[in-house]
Amino acid sequence: MFAKETYKQRRALLKQRLGSGVLLFLGNDECGLNYEDNAFRYRQDSTFLYYFGISAAGLSAIIDIDEDKEIIFGDELTMDDIVWMGPQPTLHEKSERVGVTNTRPTADLPNHLRQCVLKGKEIHYLPPYRPEHKLKLMDWLGVPVDRQEGSVPFIRAVVAQRNYKSDEEVAEIERACDVTADMHIAATKVIRPGMYEYEVVAEMNRVAEMNNCQLSFPTIATINGQTLHNHYHGNLIKPGDLFLIDAGAEVESGYAGDMSSTIPADKTFSTRQREVYEIQNAMHLESVKALRPGIAYMDVYDISARVMVEGMKTLGLMKGDAEEAVRQGAHALFYPHGLGHMMGLDVHDMENLGELWVGYDGKPKSTQFGRKSQRLAIPLEAGFVHTVEPGIYFIPELIDQWKAEKKFVDFINYDKVETYKDFGGIRNEEDYLITPTGARRLGKKIPLTPAEVEALR
Amino acid sequence: MFAKETYKQRRALLKQRLGSGVLLFLGNDECGLNYEDNAFRYRQDSTFLYYFGISAAGLSAIIDIDEDKEIIFGDELTMDDIVWMGPQPTLHEKSERVGVTNTRPTADLPNHLRQCVLKGKEIHYLPPYRPEHKLKLMDWLGVPVDRQEGSVPFIRAVVAQRNYKSDEEVAEIERACDVTADMHIAATKVIRPGMYEYEVVAEMNRVAEMNNCQLSFPTIATINGQTLHNHYHGNLIKPGDLFLIDAGAEVESGYAGDMSSTIPADKTFSTRQREVYEIQNAMHLESVKALRPGIAYMDVYDISARVMVEGMKTLGLMKGDAEEAVRQGAHALFYPHGLGHMMGLDVHDMENLGELWVGYDGKPKSTQFGRKSQRLAIPLEAGFVHTVEPGIYFIPELIDQWKAEKKFVDFINYDKVETYKDFGGIRNEEDYLITPTGARRLGKKIPLTPAEVEALR
Repeated sequence: MFAKETYKQRRALLKQRLGSGVLLFLGNDECGLNYEDNAFRYRQDSTFLYYFGISAAGLSAIIDIDEDKEIIFGDELTMDDIVWMGPQPTLHEKSERVGVTNTRPTADLPNHLRQCVLKGKEIHYLPPYRPEHKLKLMDWLGVPVDRQEGSVPFIRAVVAQRNYKSDEEVAEIERACDVTADMHIAATKVIRPGMYEYEVVAEMNRVAEMNNCQLSFPTIATINGQTLHNHYHGNLIKPGDLFLIDAGAEVESGYAGDMSSTIPADKTFSTRQREVYEIQNAMHLESVKALRPGIAYMDVYDISARVMVEGMKTLGLMKGDAEEAVRQGAHALFYPHGLGHMMGLDVHDMENLGELWVGYDGKPKSTQFGRKSQRLAIPLEAGFVHTVEPGIYFIPELIDQWKAEKKFVDFINYDKVETYKDFGGIRNEEDYLITPTGARRLGKKIPLTPAEVEALR
Repeated sequence: MFAKETYKQRRALLKQRLGSGVLLFLGNDECGLNYEDNAFRYRQDSTFLYYFGISAAGLSAIIDIDEDKEIIFGDELTMDDIVWMGPQPTLHEKSERVGVTNTRPTADLPNHLRQCVLKGKEIHYLPPYRPEHKLKLMDWLGVPVDRQEGSVPFIRAVVAQRNYKSDEEVAEIERACDVTADMHIAATKVIRPGMYEYEVVAEMNRVAEMNNCQLSFPTIATINGQTLHNHYHGNLIKPGDLFLIDAGAEVESGYAGDMSSTIPADKTFSTRQREVYEIQNAMHLESVKALRPGIAYMDVYDISARVMVEGMKTLGLMKGDAEEAVRQGAHALFYPHGLGHMMGLDVHDMENLGELWVGYDGKPKSTQFGRKSQRLAIPLEAGFVHTVEPGIYFIPELIDQWKAEKKFVDFINYDKVETYKDFGGIRNEEDYLITPTGARRLGKKIPLTPAEVEALR
């Protein structure tokens, strides 16, 4: 938790930006795995954390801009709660630590909202992503589930604040990145043929846990790197495999790290692995070189894609004009995801507020396969924190489909591609802060080049 | 996953028991931590797992008893899904593995249910515990959230099956118990003053993960054992502390283990710790000795409570007639929870179906503090799997409250109790299968007596 002033200033700026109305913040509740009282680890909503700092279930908050009032709604502990959960500060004490003096029981909230509506005040809320939020909006405001889009002015005002990371936020993110890097370094050192994927995961989790960190997202650690969001960890690692890891730590304050590594199961890369790896590295390095305030991140994505096509041409996997290939979307056979995303209190920062507002400033997104997965398109600005994570994959099902459809035959040498269908995938990922003059990598360095990876094996 | 026949037989028995109507099974969806696509680990609903065996999000199932039809509703993967999640068996293939040949898109389900209602069929569903279930029942059946109690005949039929563990279920539970025991043994070996609680947790999680297991519930690992459900792991372990662990592994099939240990931070127990520990051990051993088919588990709870009172009298903490003290509830100052609970696909098995049906056969529960937390009261039967976990705690806030209220002054020596307010808590827990003639401990043995604990230090 930051100092009280941080939260007060954040709320003051938000009030100033929106000018009028009532802002409703829905905190997250506990979520039961297989029955109500067997809950997943508790995670507060990030926007609630950003403005109110309290990580506890069962809270809601209101900022009534017109009356300049801030209220946190929640219930105080009973003796039964104390027996089962231990002594804790009261809600009132917790609220004072973030500069809110007004607390009320949750039961008062529906009526409070009704009174606001009767007085003609507009109630702003953010798009719900948890089903419990949907139930509450329906119950408290009478909004049917399929009409709970959320308030665009509220969304835009939150994005306009959370997009710019303060020094104290960057310090938290950097702590998360340091632990994240240690997780990757530990995995790079330990992987051997004959291990199961979950044994590597256990090593990484141990690093996170020894630093009192959670995971910022479910770990990808797989010999099937060509599967982009693969959370299965049951495979045996064999000689010749490439092992792809995408994992990150979350520090106690909620800030996230997110990095990726690709490691040979053997001590060294094979020639074929190294050739593709070098192309991925070039994509990565050229992208990082381009980072500076003012450049549209979609343009950096284009750079990474063009570098890939040029590289794939040297291996005989692609052909033709690189720029045209990228324009038409042919590169996406091997690079079907984006170059990176905002990172902060969420690993995909503010994804719940809508990619359109966070990464596109409300402007329409491309529908092209591959490009449509780019989460961040707008010009970079000092204070942005985002990932850089180009990748190259050989996805057999996608290759078969495109080949059958004769897609981009002017750019893709399918006969050659056929011989890479057992290759897997490669991704490396680092986290960057945009500075007034360029960009700074956050956290400890993880091995990036083939030589750096092999040095740790 | 068990063989197809297991699921077919389970469903056949359920149909036979209920005789008529339509049974609706709601599978669990993914649940997003901080945005929709950043999900907690996926956990299927246990009743869905029991009858349909498929651990995947987005599924529902119907058993139409009148028409002897079983249908699984869900959606097949798209090419986008395969790119992001990898190739997988189709829903139809997965369903055939559990003996269901009929699959349909989720979009067909609401109309299918409407047709059933129009035909005058009764739709039975179980009490929802996830908000997504509540939204579905509201949307599909038009039942308001506050009236979704669930069908008692359906609940009772499920309990009547899941209460009795088959040999193949016991084998899975025993695998979970073996890993659980290894987690406790690893922790017992590693704890030292100067470590943080989370470092001990990291060791335990590593054991679970190296065995490709999940946790069956959030780990308790604390120097504040007097706080019963304490999930905070940020304290430094000091010389003289007692460290209480309650943790368990869940194997891939979903079956759980659940054990507790109490370990001195030092190499040996202090005299005062040993004296209380020996009482807790006597409670545990006398309870285990009583386990056999036919004995009401509430009677075993009474045995454990009486043994505690007798022991506390020798330390001068209690006085008076032990049986009367337990009848009135005076023991609950030190022993405010139950002796144990059913265990199976849920660590508190079927808790989502209601304790009343699982542990009390529908008969009313006591409201007495302490006794009301006993989750299992009915006579034990061969095939039951449950925990044995008596405990002794010194909870300062509860002691202060009872003392101020002069509660049970005939049974409690508050002056003496005052001197134990910094003691903490002790619990040991093992898992038992009731056999035709008695009971069998499941899984590897963990240290139970002070001598056994100290031998591992």
